[in-house]
Order: sequence, then C-alpha cells, then structure tokens
Amino acid sequence: MKTIAIIGAGPAGMEASGSLARLGYHVVLIEKEATVGGHLKNLFQLFPDRRPGKEILTHLVQTIKHPGIQIKVNSEVSEVQKLDNSFALKINEETMNADAVLVTTGFDLYDATEKEEYGYGIYPNVITSADLEQMFHNGKVVTEEGKTPKRVAFIHCVGSRDEKAGNNYCSKVCCVTAVKQAIEIKELLPETEVFCYYMDIRMFGPYYEELYREAQEKWGVMFIRGKLSEASQNMDGSILMKAEDTLAGKPLRMNTDLMVLMAGMVPSASSKKVAQQFKMEEGQNRFFKSADNHYRYNESQQMGVFIAGACVAPMNITDTIANARAAAVKIDEYLKN
Amino acid sequence: MKTIAIIGAGPAGMEASGSLARLGYHVVLIEKEATVGGHLKNLFQLFPDRRPGKEILTHLVQTIKHPGIQIKVNSEVSEVQKLDNSFALKINEETMNADAVLVTTGFDLYDATEKEEYGYGIYPNVITSADLEQMFHNGKVVTEEGKTPKRVAFIHCVGSRDEKAGNNYCSKVCCVTAVKQAIEIKELLPETEVFCYYMDIRMFGPYYEELYREAQEKWGVMFIRGKLSEASQNMDGSILMKAEDTLAGKPLRMNTDLMVLMAGMVPSASSKKVAQQFKMEEGQNRFFKSADNHYRYNESQQMGVFIAGACVAPMNITDTIANARAAAVKIDEYLKN
Repeated sequence: MKTIAIIGAGPAGMEASGSLARLGYHVVLIEKEATVGGHLKNLFQLFPDRRPGKEILTHLVQTIKHPGIQIKVNSEVSEVQKLDNSFALKINEETMNADAVLVTTGFDLYDATEKEEYGYGIYPNVITSADLEQMFHNGKVVTEEGKTPKRVAFIHCVGSRDEKAGNNYCSKVCCVTAVKQAIEIKELLPETEVFCYYMDIRMFGPYYEELYREAQEKWGVMFIRGKLSEASQNMDGSILMKAEDTLAGKPLRMNTDLMVLMAGMVPSASSKKVAQQFKMEEGQNRFFKSADNHYRYNESQQMGVFIAGACVAPMNITDTIANARAAAVKIDEYLKN
Repeated sequence: MKTIAIIGAGPAGMEASGSLARLGYHVVLIEKEATVGGHLKNLFQLFPDRRPGKEILTHLVQTIKHPGIQIKVNSEVSEVQKLDNSFALKINEETMNADAVLVTTGFDLYDATEKEEYGYGIYPNVITSADLEQMFHNGKVVTEEGKTPKRVAFIHCVGSRDEKAGNNYCSKVCCVTAVKQAIEIKELLPETEVFCYYMDIRMFGPYYEELYREAQEKWGVMFIRGKLSEASQNMDGSILMKAEDTLAGKPLRMNTDLMVLMAGMVPSASSKKVAQQFKMEEGQNRFFKSADNHYRYNESQQMGVFIAGACVAPMNITDTIANARAAAVKIDEYLKN
C-alpha cells in the first residue's frame, strides 16, 4: 500500500486525507499544533449562509476517522531526503517513507501591527476581524472598557492590495467576511451604527451580493468607498479615524468605538519552511507556484509534491474543500503511473 | 463495470470524464453540439496569464481520449427514468443505463439584447465581449465600417448585479476578462483610447490585480466608476454613451467607436431542461442547488445526480477543472458504497 504524507491539518489537509484514504491509500497527516482544524477552529459562522464553522469542522473530523489515516499532532517535518520515487521524512525523531507528499500549509493572517498608522497593538479598541470572530464565539461584542460600542467601523484590505505591505493581491474573503460580521453586529446590537470602508466591494460568489443587499437594506450598514490614512485614540479610548472618501474625493474624520481591521491572508511561516525543505518554487505573490495555472494547479514544480488549499492562493472553505479533492484525484493518478 | 452519464462536454464534463475513466469507470459523455469544448472553444486567450484557450482545449481533448470514455456528440437526453439504483436515459432513440449522472451543462451568456437601452442588436458598433473575443481570433479589431476604432469602451456588469435583469449575482469573470481584453486592444492598437466603466473592480484571483495595474500603468487604460444609462448611434455610426460617473457624482457623455458589453453568465437552457428531467432543485439565483453549500457542493438534491462547473455557479476555467475533479472523487465514493 502506498503512503502519502500530508503536511498541515487544516480543511485542505483533512479533506484530502479522507479522499485519499477512501481511494485506498495510507495517509499520514502531520500537524504542528496540538489539534486539527487550522483557522476553521476560529470561525464562528461562515459566509454567505451563516453556517456555524463548527459544523464544517465536525464534518472534517469525521472524515479523518478512517483506519487508513494516521494523525500526528504536535509534529513537524524536520528533514527531507529525496529518494528515487519517494521521500524520506524525519518527523519527531522518527523517519517515514512517503510515495507522495501533499502540502496543505494554509495561510497566516497578515500581521496588522505592521500597519503602524492604524494602531493595532497600540490602541485596544483597534481589533482584527479574527478578534471580532472570537467575540462572536463569546456572544458579546464590547469595547476594551467593557461598553457596548455605539459605532463600529470595518476597514477592508488591511495588508491586501497594498504595495507598501508588499502584498499586491486581493485576499478574496475579507469583503464578504466584513459584510457578514457587520450583519452579526447589527443582530446583536441593533442600535449600533456600522460602517464599512472599502476600495471595491468584491462580493463575487453565490449569494454574496444578497448578503451585501441585506446589510444595506435590512440592517442599514453604511458603505463608504474610502481609504483610512491613520487612526489615533481619543481620551475616552474611542478611535479617531482620518480617511479619504474616494467617492466624494474629500478627507473625512470619524470617531468610532471599535475599529475592525480586515487583515488579509499571507503565505504561512510553515509554507516557507516546507518550500525550503522540498525546494519548491514560490510565485510572485509568495504563495506556492503551480506547475500549470489551469490544469496542473495542484502540482508543485517538484515531482511527487502536491499542493492544495490556501497555501496555493487565498480561497474560501468551499473552494478549499473542492481543491483538496481535486488534489486527491491527481495524486491517485500520479501513484498509479 | 459501473457507468456514469455526463451531460455536457464543456471543460467540466471533459475533465470529469477523464478523471472518472482513470478511476476505472465507463463514461458516456453526451454533448448536444457537434463538437466538444463548450464556451472554451470561443476563448482566444485566458486570464490572467494570457494562455491561449486552445492549449487548454487541447489538454481536455487529450484527457477524453481514453478507452473508458464513449463520446456522443449531436446528442441529447430525451427521457429519464429513475430505477432503484440507477437511471435509464433515452439518447437519440437508444436507451442506456447509468449508475450515476453528472450534470455539467454550464452557462449561457446573458442575452444583451434584453438591455434595449444599450442598443445591442440595434447599433452594429455595440458588441459583446464574446464578439470581441472572436475579433481577437481573427487578429483584427475593426468597427462595422471597417475602420480602426479610435476609442473603445467596455461596460462591466451587463446582466449581472442587475435587479431589472433578474440577476442579482456577480458573474465573477467579467471584470478580469474586460481588463484582459482592454490590454489586448492596446497591444493591437496602441493609439486607441480604452475605457472601462465599472461598478466595483473585482480582481480577486491570483495575478488579477497585477493585470489591473498593467492595464493602468503600462497601457493607460482609463477606469471610470460609472454606470451606463443609455446608448445611441451618431450619424457616423459611432456610439454616444450617456452614463453617470459615480465617483464624481455627475452625468457624463462620451462618444466611442466601439462599445463592448461584458455580458454575464446565466444558467443554460440545457440546465433548465435537465433540471426538469431529473427533478433537480434550483437555487434562488436559478443555478443548480447543491446538497450542501460547503462540503456537498457537487451533489444535487437528487441521490445519484451530481453537478459540477458553471451550472452550479459562475466560475473560471481553473476552478471549473478543480470542481470537475472534486465531483469525480464524490461520484467514486458514491458508487463504491
């Protein structure tokens, strides 16, 4: 029986493990953290259908309960040796042999402290969308001072489409996440004013536009085509935003009790490490480079090393799951030849 | 050996046929037209890498050259009978038995004549992006009068994000197609002025933003956040556009020699027919409804009937190919149980 090592047990790695095990392979799923699930563990509800993240996680946990799958948590690949038609991998002082490797090392959130002018890590009422998601988990959205925010402002494209940040690309999921979170705030706190500061509203997927309409028509979320230039803290802890309204072409100042930064996706630290170990190529955007952009999307430039999910490009959960299954098909074909 | 009927031989149907045949199934690929390839046949170059559409088509044609695949062109399913664990399908007066069915009936282009105020089908210098793609195939972009256009204007979101047209959704590929075509025009005709009238520029995929920058910085394509209200024809055959500049908040008039409508995607006529035959559910957006939006994306609400590609939602070629492979994995699992 042939063995596949899968590096990273987020949604891509978990789904691919299930597909490959059901195709008859022995899978070793390697996760550096103590638990599987990756970023999905932190998502309270998914867009656009407000599905609890937990339901999808439960599905994925079920899918990897298979006799063909060996799960190694708290584990990292420390050494790689390329053999003739396989790889010798050193994991926690043990060595295993893999006939193929699937890299599913996902993404890291952009470190919002790098945008110093936005004040994340300096002013406590500047938070990220991940912090807000955690508040939704806890069922309570409050300012640092423990008060109900009278106003919340979302800042789209933090560390995305940003030459200064070194990330020209769009992170694809932040617009729709912001709109979803804006609605969630209005549901919890109907009296709170909610603003979204955007460059372009990228609601491209099925039922994203409907969510955008709901935010405007049902909940009165206000969308401002504008760019934040800097934020500072008022005496009472609230945030003074200086922005440019790019529709009106005018500078704009606004106070907000909570400012939410939609931090984008960057290639993960694990991806960088794995890229070196397997001598894989990065694209211009620093995500992994596919052997072909159209029909060899899940193959790296290295024979026998495959890639899937958000380590290839920013993608949502639905696309990640499809992508993982697609990778499984190509690995099966590779191992049969 | 189990048999899978695949309805529609565009990219999704072709790729899934190859994957399923290599998984050991007998595939009958049914295409109503005389040749395979679907809309891909009409694409001169793909975004974002300007890959000739023909190269991808060649790959797909290779993939279906497999002894396990029987291709039936000029063929349509005329009758469906649900049996215990299979379907009896009548095709061209013959009846076949299928253990599973994969529907890959793709999309139709939005009929731009429905937007009467834009003048498509009335004024010859109002064309669609599909017409322009055909001009690129022919290597020559000219007006109806046979002249080199001094100015070309692209109108984004024709029949997409348009409540009046009955399509609230974004068609996902038009923005990046317009930017690609704008660059192609500048390459052929460097002296021609090119304008894009957009609502939001949705360049969300890998290397889309780079294309957008190239259009602006290298080629001087002008992007106007604006909405066309109506078009009329001048004496010389050129087009007078009346629009609203939604950045400046002002009405705007502009003459153009060629006006290109970015017609969106709508569910295909074939999808509607197949939906009735198999009693499949449509979503609110009239594309097929998945059994689950996140992890049963390729399953319809009918047991044994699967869906993939642009009949599920607007998607590009890369996503369509991944989606087809993902469907193959799920069909394999279904037939093994």
